Amino acid sequence: MLQHLRGMNTHRVVIVGGGFAGLYAAKSFRSKDVSITIVDRRNFHLFQPLLYQVATGALSPGEIASPLRYVLRNRKEISVVLGEVTDIDPAARKLVLADGSQIAYDSLLIATGATHSYFAHPEWAQHAPGLKTVEDATEIRARILLAFERAETAATDEERRAHLTFAIVGGGPTGVEVAGALAEISRDTLKHDFRNIDTASARICLIEGSPRLLHAFDPASSAAAERQLRSLGVEIHTGSTVTAIDADGVSFQHEGAETRVNAKTVIWAAGVQASPLGKLLAERTGVSLDRAGRVIVEPDLSLPGHREILVAGDLASGSTNGKPWPGVAPTAMQHGAYAAKLIVNRLRDRTTAPFRYWNKGSLATIGRNKAVAEVGSFRFSGIFAWLAWLLIHIFYIIEFENRMLIVFQWAYDYFTFNRGARLITGPDAQHQAKPHS
Amino acid sequence: MLQHLRGMNTHRVVIVGGGFAGLYAAKSFRSKDVSITIVDRRNFHLFQPLLYQVATGALSPGEIASPLRYVLRNRKEISVVLGEVTDIDPAARKLVLADGSQIAYDSLLIATGATHSYFAHPEWAQHAPGLKTVEDATEIRARILLAFERAETAATDEERRAHLTFAIVGGGPTGVEVAGALAEISRDTLKHDFRNIDTASARICLIEGSPRLLHAFDPASSAAAERQLRSLGVEIHTGSTVTAIDADGVSFQHEGAETRVNAKTVIWAAGVQASPLGKLLAERTGVSLDRAGRVIVEPDLSLPGHREILVAGDLASGSTNGKPWPGVAPTAMQHGAYAAKLIVNRLRDRTTAPFRYWNKGSLATIGRNKAVAEVGSFRFSGIFAWLAWLLIHIFYIIEFENRMLIVFQWAYDYFTFNRGARLITGPDAQHQAKPHS
Repeated sequence: MLQHLRGMNTHRVVIVGGGFAGLYAAKSFRSKDVSITIVDRRNFHLFQPLLYQVATGALSPGEIASPLRYVLRNRKEISVVLGEVTDIDPAARKLVLADGSQIAYDSLLIATGATHSYFAHPEWAQHAPGLKTVEDATEIRARILLAFERAETAATDEERRAHLTFAIVGGGPTGVEVAGALAEISRDTLKHDFRNIDTASARICLIEGSPRLLHAFDPASSAAAERQLRSLGVEIHTGSTVTAIDADGVSFQHEGAETRVNAKTVIWAAGVQASPLGKLLAERTGVSLDRAGRVIVEPDLSLPGHREILVAGDLASGSTNGKPWPGVAPTAMQHGAYAAKLIVNRLRDRTTAPFRYWNKGSLATIGRNKAVAEVGSFRFSGIFAWLAWLLIHIFYIIEFENRMLIVFQWAYDYFTFNRGARLITGPDAQHQAKPHS
Repeated sequence: MLQHLRGMNTHRVVIVGGGFAGLYAAKSFRSKDVSITIVDRRNFHLFQPLLYQVATGALSPGEIASPLRYVLRNRKEISVVLGEVTDIDPAARKLVLADGSQIAYDSLLIATGATHSYFAHPEWAQHAPGLKTVEDATEIRARILLAFERAETAATDEERRAHLTFAIVGGGPTGVEVAGALAEISRDTLKHDFRNIDTASARICLIEGSPRLLHAFDPASSAAAERQLRSLGVEIHTGSTVTAIDADGVSFQHEGAETRVNAKTVIWAAGVQASPLGKLLAERTGVSLDRAGRVIVEPDLSLPGHREILVAGDLASGSTNGKPWPGVAPTAMQHGAYAAKLIVNRLRDRTTAPFRYWNKGSLATIGRNKAVAEVGSFRFSGIFAWLAWLLIHIFYIIEFENRMLIVFQWAYDYFTFNRGARLITGPDAQHQAKPHS
């Protein structure tokens, strides 16, 4: 086991997952009494709030991801292990990795987040990719760009219309961001690039099951978001339940009536499902899961009966003052910092007050100069909300890796309407030109 | 056919391939008498001289690639078609694409370049990826980074050594660049990132069949390159013929003696083979190919018997003053500009002098502050050659897309020894942590 290489006197903290929760936990430890191992399947921390910018060609994957080892290079007490956890043995207090190796822990923090859920329709996945990983983002980017390419050489008007129609399922922050970015791409970025089509005629449909977009926000913010999206030409279908997705489009029901949208590109921004490690934890410790598969934790993020195991971030289910923790980056960061404090306090026989989520506010960006923001009871939208979004993201990104470059990239793209990372890449990209699907 | 959308009075030029030759040809036309269609399998022009920087984590693919449509957006007489040419009909003067569509031409320029060749050993490809496409580069990047990850968790010293050994086959400019970058990664970039291994102990072997590295350069430059690589700790094996490559390493013969290097990472930077369109042209027009499959063209780049078909760039074989044209970007750019001039001159019944390659000089970079340069009979190496390399590449990249950002990225990385794009991505990357190969 890896820890044999180090002294056995320190308290061994093992963190699974290098997302916002896991990474903030690791960075928050400031004690010489602990050794920390962070295990992730990927070698990088992904700045997920900007993933839609990769999917829409504004940024490259390398610009929103930082190698975990690099972020933690100066913290000699922290080890990074690239590996996939396949089992947990709470009695022996150890993890089993896919390569058969084991890692022993004294305290364990599981923060493996969530993935997208197609509810009971796994067959939709191939037609409507979701947006959780770097590979998802480059796949969606390729589909969007190929749609315009195929429209350019389409043989019939009908085919051309289908290639120029984009359906986004899910009207939460991701769906709203993708719809806004697609509008910007078709109206501005690609305006001069094609000869046979008018990219600005692209139809962008945003389909949401609940009665309004951004349903976690205040109704006034939802209305502002809808107004801003409509001004960009986005077609909004709220209260609409998707009934079918195939290679040629999407069908949905609205007040009993069935609508069909012929769209060659469908993007999934709807359901969220907890990481499978939640189910594994339930099997091994008897802990309960909520409907989305998240682990129902104690007020201090620990498991009942296994207080040495904590769960943080999107995988943890709980509430503050009766309000469930939202599945957003600030929750994960606060969870991570709390978990680190709790573990150190326990070592020093200090008690720790229950975790309390501090809602700093909510932001959703819609496109160039457009966003909605809520801070306490204060609500605003438009360019000031967009500037707030920009500043907050610049602030967090700089904290991570001195990524001033991203600021230049944004400034450059803002003034030129450009999106430089418009590459069709991937395993099949060298022959993707072949079959007209 | 696409051209039906335009008038039939203009001379239809079709260019196959959006590399340096094809793109420079398209950009060089300044005549209203021609309409231009550029066909490529990929939607972007790739700045191939910097591809090794993607393979070694310094740049992201989006930073060295520009969408062809974007580069040509303001040239309304140029159409871009994403497609793969599968047949040529010289009698009917038309191309057939993989999707079955056809494109008619009056003048045709084929500039589809070259790919790597494993000589008579296609089975080596899986163990020793080459470096020609964006996907090749991200695959090599993943292999290099995974090698360090696996060394970190290796069970035995022998296994650790094998993961920390890198073999590069081919001592031309690409092999030299990759070897230098690998030395920099292991000695500087990753120095503080791991806890169980000393990355600086990585063994880097550069294997070349001919008696010296950079054999297209002057012997003095080869000696300088070898000296600079040795100062970085690179092991050089010249006059060494590779006899076997498998999952565990590479074997080669030197003066009759067989040597085995146990290396989990082998990178192929050796043989070059012309694009398969060369063979297709030979079958359809009877033109001769050289040993590497390149098309032997007339002094004006045209085909004997089919003067309306021109070949440019790495796919064209010819010589100036008895010296064969080297397979480098400047040759391709000069070919492209010449082809455009020739076609316009023909339309105006003007004659054009045969193509003459103008050797502006040769450059190969070796790493931080290290390079060799030859301009005419003048040779220099070290930091001045490296600065020359840097300036020339910055100049060309800026010409393409105002990519000032790459300059900031380089400056930032130079002073921090960082390489920000160190991502393990790809179709299997989410589970690549699993099998210890």
